[in-house]
Amino acid sequence: MNAVEQSLESADDTPREVPSPPPALEDPSRSLNARLLGKLLRFIGNPPLEFALRSGELVRGPGPEPVARVVFKDRKTLLGVLADPFMRFGDAYCEGRIDIHGDLVRLIELVYEATAFRAGSGPRSLTGRVFEWLRRPRANSLKGSRANIHHHYDIGNEFYSLWLGDTMAYTCAYYPAPDVSLDAAQIAKFDHVARKLRLKPGETVVEAGCGWGGLALHMARRYGVQVRAFNISKEQLAYGRARAREEGLAGKVEFIEDDYRNITGRYDAFVSVGMLEHVGVAHYPELGRVARACLPKHGRGLIHSIGRNFPAPLHPWIEKRIFPGAYPPALSEMSQIFEPSDLSILDIENLRLHYAQTLRQWMDLYERNVERVRSLFDEKFVRMWRLYLAGSIAGFTVGTLQLFQVVFAPRDNNAVPMTRDHLYGSTAWSGHANR
Amino acid sequence: MNAVEQSLESADDTPREVPSPPPALEDPSRSLNARLLGKLLRFIGNPPLEFALRSGELVRGPGPEPVARVVFKDRKTLLGVLADPFMRFGDAYCEGRIDIHGDLVRLIELVYEATAFRAGSGPRSLTGRVFEWLRRPRANSLKGSRANIHHHYDIGNEFYSLWLGDTMAYTCAYYPAPDVSLDAAQIAKFDHVARKLRLKPGETVVEAGCGWGGLALHMARRYGVQVRAFNISKEQLAYGRARAREEGLAGKVEFIEDDYRNITGRYDAFVSVGMLEHVGVAHYPELGRVARACLPKHGRGLIHSIGRNFPAPLHPWIEKRIFPGAYPPALSEMSQIFEPSDLSILDIENLRLHYAQTLRQWMDLYERNVERVRSLFDEKFVRMWRLYLAGSIAGFTVGTLQLFQVVFAPRDNNAVPMTRDHLYGSTAWSGHANR
Repeated sequence: MNAVEQSLESADDTPREVPSPPPALEDPSRSLNARLLGKLLRFIGNPPLEFALRSGELVRGPGPEPVARVVFKDRKTLLGVLADPFMRFGDAYCEGRIDIHGDLVRLIELVYEATAFRAGSGPRSLTGRVFEWLRRPRANSLKGSRANIHHHYDIGNEFYSLWLGDTMAYTCAYYPAPDVSLDAAQIAKFDHVARKLRLKPGETVVEAGCGWGGLALHMARRYGVQVRAFNISKEQLAYGRARAREEGLAGKVEFIEDDYRNITGRYDAFVSVGMLEHVGVAHYPELGRVARACLPKHGRGLIHSIGRNFPAPLHPWIEKRIFPGAYPPALSEMSQIFEPSDLSILDIENLRLHYAQTLRQWMDLYERNVERVRSLFDEKFVRMWRLYLAGSIAGFTVGTLQLFQVVFAPRDNNAVPMTRDHLYGSTAWSGHANR
Repeated sequence: MNAVEQSLESADDTPREVPSPPPALEDPSRSLNARLLGKLLRFIGNPPLEFALRSGELVRGPGPEPVARVVFKDRKTLLGVLADPFMRFGDAYCEGRIDIHGDLVRLIELVYEATAFRAGSGPRSLTGRVFEWLRRPRANSLKGSRANIHHHYDIGNEFYSLWLGDTMAYTCAYYPAPDVSLDAAQIAKFDHVARKLRLKPGETVVEAGCGWGGLALHMARRYGVQVRAFNISKEQLAYGRARAREEGLAGKVEFIEDDYRNITGRYDAFVSVGMLEHVGVAHYPELGRVARACLPKHGRGLIHSIGRNFPAPLHPWIEKRIFPGAYPPALSEMSQIFEPSDLSILDIENLRLHYAQTLRQWMDLYERNVERVRSLFDEKFVRMWRLYLAGSIAGFTVGTLQLFQVVFAPRDNNAVPMTRDHLYGSTAWSGHANR
């Protein structure tokens, strides 16, 4: 049993009657409850799970050993979930009206596996489109973005420091080998990004959406570049500036409280790690124009973002409770950054399984520090973030979420590396050697 | 002077009056001609070129030394090019009504550089769209594809053997280092593809559009896999089968005369190198369904194709005279292969400058063997293919053409490599090691 499972077991300390199979079916009201539980189980594809009510009714999917048991407080909670499973399940779990015993991540994986194909098959119905429109992400205008970003990132640096590790990098890490620690994998990601950008000492870099500044500081420290790092989260900027001062890098990294749309100037490289999720597809051509305008002929760019195999909205519960305005794009959508500005895509790497591993390590730290989280916030918050982390692990493991790292350059940059050997320790040669 | 330039010089053996600057402007008819020449020069952005008529008029773009001199036979030819530059320039060159002295490749690069931004900027006008519709590529129905493929690939294996090198690979090679020979770079490409697919002995591979069979034979020989290779070009299949027999690989590679849409069965890997250009965007979802249906959960796929930075038709002269039905897609269009079938894109590599180098080596061989080409066909054919090869070098050098190698897998394949180290000689670790 790992820390996550331990915590899931121990977190359920509310006294209640644990139901035991087989359910008694003579009582007519119990029988309705059992039928409703069965309906929900079939809706998600009849996976090896147990669904129960605190009053005792229980249904079980096939297989010898259920992965988890989901216990609904009462019929009202169950009916709510049946009416709007995507929103109500998460809310009821956070409010303690649903308890989960067993492997939360595997439970969500089973649901995603059973429903992923349906989501991807065929053209969407009119009802489906109306539903998607009603649940469209909140607008990412200049003002809307500030509100959206504040909602998620300004809830306290201490909270994030409990589970993000020393780098405070809140994006997919890169594991060059198994059993690499979280902090080492985040540093490896910084290096992977810097190598993809082929940074050279003395060059200038503009970063759109710099988080707590980990990448900006690493690039300045390790690659000798001058960085201008943009962000609209005040808490993150305060943290980044303090860290720059402590490390004597304040002259190398300039943290700027402003929107990516207000970036000006010319830089050798443009980088954006984990911001695109907050940009909104409608603004992609604008982001591309900003990047294009930044880059001289020899410039390079990198955008790192959560994505999808096909266009689909973010899980509505995550969009509403965790990440307002967020949307993970498919590559057809991401291409709208590059194509209108005639930017060449040089390299795309999908790091999906790296994000699953990153999230497992975050969740492990989260559960180790869960008492501190509870004392900073409350049990509802604890459960909300647990569900979000577990759901994200499941999404990347099942493949309903992807992680795309895209390297690009102005079309006429013929000094780009000819091969990707330089990312893996070999010597590099570039296009210019060839002409 | 390289072989290409030599041949371009020596190919112009028709007796004519070579004009010499400055042009006499007193004659009113000459003056009209000079104005027309100037109009054409300005239309393509006033590059450092000389445009002349055989009757003596000449205009010159800026710069001390023009890259090339383009001589029009008469005013009728010049007016034709002004009316429809994209089609008439190529045709007039092939028919000897235009001669070119100097660097043909650089000439086309200058034209592409001057016009590339216009092509990429802003939404297309209605007139532009009508024009594009009129010049849309010919349909790639089952029957249409056969006619289109026959037009290009069945003009004789001897012709292609004169300039493709020993592998007969008619797709972008891979240069792991500068100064790699054409044949070595084609073998390196085969290995790059096979490594990206992580082929293991005993596995099965289906190839959609196998050309003369070079990759199929290499995979069978070097990686110990069983290959079913589909193609609708009879000449190529005959060549591939003969080579398989000679090499004792007839039991390992099965060459099948059929359309990719008729592929059945399950395979560990799906590969298609240089076929997508002939598929047509309307058929991409169908290609994706075929690939998806082929692959088990652990399956891998690779599609290698010429592409674009944004959707735009192939040069109309190339589509009409050289490659009927061909179309190089932008990534937003290519994504229509993968997204409707929930296939995960794992890796995209842009090998644009490798194709420029491949084409330079092809053109060098072509010009070395140009007398044999002339004896097999005629001067018009010689010029047509010279222009096509030179134009292609220019396209990849300027960046109006790209080369995308896309690795993909079923969404639920979690045994994919975690990193790309294995492509560059390091040890591999895959997703399964991680769970």
